[in-house]
Amino acid sequence: MMRFFLVCFGILLSVPSFTQDRTFDLMPVPRTIKSTADRCRITKSFTIGVTGNPGDRVYKEATRALRRLDNRMGFFFKQGNITSKDNNTFASLLVEVKRPAELRLYEDESYQLFSCAKQVKIVANTDLGAIRGLETLQQLLSVDDAGYYFPGVDISDAPRFPWRGLLLDITLHWMPMDVVKRTLDGMAAVKMNVLHLHLTEDQMFGIESKVFPRLHEVGAEGNYYTQEDIKEVITYADQRGIRVVPEFDIPGHCTSWLKAYPELASVKRDYELQRYFGVFDPALDVTKDYTYEFLDKLFIEMSQLFPDEYFHIGGDENTGKDWDRNPNIKAYMKKKGMKTYRELETEFIQRLLPILQKNGKKMMGWDEILRPGVPHDIMIQSWRGTESLVEAAQKGYTGLLSTGYYIDLIQPADFHYLVDPIPANTVLTVEQQKFIVGGEVTMWTEHVTPETVDSRIWPRTAAIAERLWSASTVTNVDDMYRRLDQISLLLEGLGSTHIKNKGMLMRRLANSYDTKTLEVLVDVIEPLKIYERNAGDTMYTVFSPYTKIADVATPDQKVAREFRKNVSIYCTTRDALLEKNIIEHLHLWKANHASFLELIKRSPVLKEAAGLSENLSKIANVGLQAIGYLNNHSSPPRGWKGETLKITKKAKEQGGRCDLQVVTAIEELVSAAGK
Amino acid sequence: MMRFFLVCFGILLSVPSFTQDRTFDLMPVPRTIKSTADRCRITKSFTIGVTGNPGDRVYKEATRALRRLDNRMGFFFKQGNITSKDNNTFASLLVEVKRPAELRLYEDESYQLFSCAKQVKIVANTDLGAIRGLETLQQLLSVDDAGYYFPGVDISDAPRFPWRGLLLDITLHWMPMDVVKRTLDGMAAVKMNVLHLHLTEDQMFGIESKVFPRLHEVGAEGNYYTQEDIKEVITYADQRGIRVVPEFDIPGHCTSWLKAYPELASVKRDYELQRYFGVFDPALDVTKDYTYEFLDKLFIEMSQLFPDEYFHIGGDENTGKDWDRNPNIKAYMKKKGMKTYRELETEFIQRLLPILQKNGKKMMGWDEILRPGVPHDIMIQSWRGTESLVEAAQKGYTGLLSTGYYIDLIQPADFHYLVDPIPANTVLTVEQQKFIVGGEVTMWTEHVTPETVDSRIWPRTAAIAERLWSASTVTNVDDMYRRLDQISLLLEGLGSTHIKNKGMLMRRLANSYDTKTLEVLVDVIEPLKIYERNAGDTMYTVFSPYTKIADVATPDQKVAREFRKNVSIYCTTRDALLEKNIIEHLHLWKANHASFLELIKRSPVLKEAAGLSENLSKIANVGLQAIGYLNNHSSPPRGWKGETLKITKKAKEQGGRCDLQVVTAIEELVSAAGK
Repeated sequence: MMRFFLVCFGILLSVPSFTQDRTFDLMPVPRTIKSTADRCRITKSFTIGVTGNPGDRVYKEATRALRRLDNRMGFFFKQGNITSKDNNTFASLLVEVKRPAELRLYEDESYQLFSCAKQVKIVANTDLGAIRGLETLQQLLSVDDAGYYFPGVDISDAPRFPWRGLLLDITLHWMPMDVVKRTLDGMAAVKMNVLHLHLTEDQMFGIESKVFPRLHEVGAEGNYYTQEDIKEVITYADQRGIRVVPEFDIPGHCTSWLKAYPELASVKRDYELQRYFGVFDPALDVTKDYTYEFLDKLFIEMSQLFPDEYFHIGGDENTGKDWDRNPNIKAYMKKKGMKTYRELETEFIQRLLPILQKNGKKMMGWDEILRPGVPHDIMIQSWRGTESLVEAAQKGYTGLLSTGYYIDLIQPADFHYLVDPIPANTVLTVEQQKFIVGGEVTMWTEHVTPETVDSRIWPRTAAIAERLWSASTVTNVDDMYRRLDQISLLLEGLGSTHIKNKGMLMRRLANSYDTKTLEVLVDVIEPLKIYERNAGDTMYTVFSPYTKIADVATPDQKVAREFRKNVSIYCTTRDALLEKNIIEHLHLWKANHASFLELIKRSPVLKEAAGLSENLSKIANVGLQAIGYLNNHSSPPRGWKGETLKITKKAKEQGGRCDLQVVTAIEELVSAAGK
Repeated sequence: MMRFFLVCFGILLSVPSFTQDRTFDLMPVPRTIKSTADRCRITKSFTIGVTGNPGDRVYKEATRALRRLDNRMGFFFKQGNITSKDNNTFASLLVEVKRPAELRLYEDESYQLFSCAKQVKIVANTDLGAIRGLETLQQLLSVDDAGYYFPGVDISDAPRFPWRGLLLDITLHWMPMDVVKRTLDGMAAVKMNVLHLHLTEDQMFGIESKVFPRLHEVGAEGNYYTQEDIKEVITYADQRGIRVVPEFDIPGHCTSWLKAYPELASVKRDYELQRYFGVFDPALDVTKDYTYEFLDKLFIEMSQLFPDEYFHIGGDENTGKDWDRNPNIKAYMKKKGMKTYRELETEFIQRLLPILQKNGKKMMGWDEILRPGVPHDIMIQSWRGTESLVEAAQKGYTGLLSTGYYIDLIQPADFHYLVDPIPANTVLTVEQQKFIVGGEVTMWTEHVTPETVDSRIWPRTAAIAERLWSASTVTNVDDMYRRLDQISLLLEGLGSTHIKNKGMLMRRLANSYDTKTLEVLVDVIEPLKIYERNAGDTMYTVFSPYTKIADVATPDQKVAREFRKNVSIYCTTRDALLEKNIIEHLHLWKANHASFLELIKRSPVLKEAAGLSENLSKIANVGLQAIGYLNNHSSPPRGWKGETLKITKKAKEQGGRCDLQVVTAIEELVSAAGK
């Protein structure tokens, strides 16, 4: 610190005056941030120095940081790959690290970032902290008339929760390596630290096993990660300070295992990979010793492959029906005095534990694994709700929250943002709260492909990342959305396709370079939420085309969100500028349907959205009428409200597995006009 | 054929009337195509059947074809993975294959495609032919008011040349697996059949060697294909009927080898990977037995990895200087009576031959390998010009053309399109012409990254693919450009990023979602051509930011091309509609500079293009003046032409390594106004 002040202010000057609490465009918001009027100007002679006792990770990440900055500013920095030779303490950016981190839960990720006119300095106990600080620096890059600079700041930062994860399911739709890598880049940018790979399912066994090769040969139809791929992912993640936790989901969700090794099955049948989505009956026969011998060998292999101390065994959604169908299993249960299949599950978990323990692993699983007699070092991942997490913590079990972070369910960022692993009204004591270690975003991939997955993950996951990193008091939704827009651009610059693929998907769908008409509609619709899109699990299969309007449409459409907000404000303020903006949108939507009908002629695949487009046109017309009455201070004619009710009600119907996101705003206008 | 007519017309109806020679949007244009008024309607019950004696390739490609069609039309076809059970001869699409192909030069790629109201049928001797036919079918997909259909056609098709390749250099910038795969998808779509991987260079040794692991460990800085990656590429390519030819470029271009194994070097020095681009002196010491023992072991390993019969050893651009610096080599040459290093190269080629031959390989190399005494089964790849190809053919050597197909040089599609491996005025006899087996597009990657490489490859490569497949008489440039626009969309739908990355690159460059101002400029500039961009090889290194305006700008900008064309026509016709279009563009360009200056304030990286933007504004103004004089039938004032000459001359200066593409059109307007 002393040397920093030496560089910044010489020895004669006093400490500069700091202003408290500007968030800039930072996401997640740091623990504390003070800013000065200083500007650390960036020129083509910008360099990075690293000192202390850093590991290889920092050199690689500092090099990556240098290239990323150069890619944005285009200076042609001269410095090549940063190595231990780059230890100049007067470098433009100085990174000071005390020790290399161990990549494990609870490791120190704190850092400090100071900047003045002459230098930026990142100081951290571990290289993990330094890496987090480098990401903060990327977000601080600013511009004024004189060019690029880093603003003068004094940041002291550390995460609120030590487990900030993303579950990427690669089984319901296969996700190739480039998806995994760009997801890791995005996660690192918002300081997430666990990639949870959901590797096996009824539909696919997505990883190579050399011990039981039929698992991937028969269970994967060519799409699986080789062990070299996995090593590459782990190395890539490690460099970014991200742990990789594998999930092998048993005893249910295992049709692919049973197709490969039918001797593991509870019921003898011709197993084929599941093509539909949902919950199925096939389950391991957990009463056979063979099953444990098999799992023992497999988990030795996989434990050696994945260095993380946690090993996720799923444990969810076993229906118990296949156990019920097998007389031997029923006899086994009877002999052991087990009344329900839940008791057999408990025994299964208990028999699995030593298999993991001898490989140095701690068991992780979904809520279901919290059973009598399991040791306290397991990790509970809650998909059922905060209650089960509270229950676990009260019993002294560590757990993390996924309920509320299911980004596959197409809910808006602000919904997820306000879900707190430890809500303000928690019944847990301060000591008990420590058992809640964080949360995990879950990206289930029933309804996404490599083309659309990024638009489901980003930018909303950045808001959840902030929830898990920043203080619980950081809850300003407007400011979150303001920063999310900036982070979204930054994430695109890092390789995420969530913005650019919209254009591609629209061009393919419209069969044309001209996608204006389509975009007008797409901007105000969202795919059906929660589990509505595939209600009954009968519509979609792993083969289905995910290239339609519901796939171009994204969650949390900005145009619709801002329209709703503007209407709400307008209804109370009658602000003239807002009115102009609202009327412009309504005219656009009203007129769009005619060109949409023309578009369908060129691209019949869009026919399914004709109703949406027509309804949008009609409610836009209603909105214009409502504003007309509001402006004339005249009452609408008798029956108008009834008529509009029919129109807005109809406009809530789905089309192409999407629904309109501006109907409530129109209803609000109607309601205001009716007063 | 009989059964086809049975399905199509019953036994009572006569053969339909065909119309000759519609090209639809097909690229490459088939050998012969006749069309009828029939429309083979596509419904959700569309199925594919495969009969005959097909290999696994066709089943996989038929499945992929089915999914691709479904992705475009969104029908949710019920048919799963196509297997030998799918042999219904009344399927909507019937594929008849006589035998599985061997993936080698001269293999039969011909096919016939018939369609009538009731069925489409593809008949081919080999599965390769069937795969080419499946791609034609994708391009035939049409739309009318009743929905999707395939038009009635009778196509008989086969390639003009058997070698239609693309060289992908993965060493000057690393190209990860997803780039290779999407390139293969694009190549397959335009019926190309050889992927030539340029794997080693002064800057990188890009492939794992288990025999000499330092080659990739020391020579690649982490970026290399593992042998499993290579197998994956070969399998992926094989399914699409594409051969994979590896290039190990020796005896020059080998600094990365020498860093790993200095004992191979002609000169003892501390070898580091080259960071700049260009031609360097390091070379293998080809007088040592050790060198041949090394190559022997390495090429045994690589020959086993790559099944193709051709093995490319480079052979280009050895400067001979390092040989000259080594007294032992000079003594060796003197002893052998060699006067120049070219003679030593000849010996090197001759000593390499048996090493390849014992592995069942034929040698392929650049022009330089055509030396006295080399056997006739080598393959010459010409980068120096058609002359060396003619010379080779006259001597009875097979060869293929790359001169004229260097797509890294940013020339327009029509330039490449009109380069014929056997020009109409060839001096070669018909027999000699057979030695010219085709051509290869070369994608050297000095100045591209994975973000921009697609925009260099596509769509121009599709035009070259047509040159190599279709008849030499297919040379209508306007029709080529018309079809290229359609193929470009199709290629994007297959995964190419050449269109969508423009938006991403502009957003990053503008640091904003709003890129209109930037796009107005980008649409009329192109990166400097031939070797001008990096004149002297001193500006760019492998670390340089390739994220600037020269990287967003693409070759063959459509807006500029069409403007030039419109101006040319307008100058003779004075067509009023064209005039309106031209004036609109000129006003847009004239006004754009003011907002561009605002944009620079937000994104100083764009400052380098301020001059381009200002010049565009100024020449637009000149253009408007010229049109004014033309319309008034008035002579411009004295000195006007001289003034404009200064302006247009200055507008030809580069900015940000780009130049304006509409200056000649303005000059044409000025010239017309001056008459």
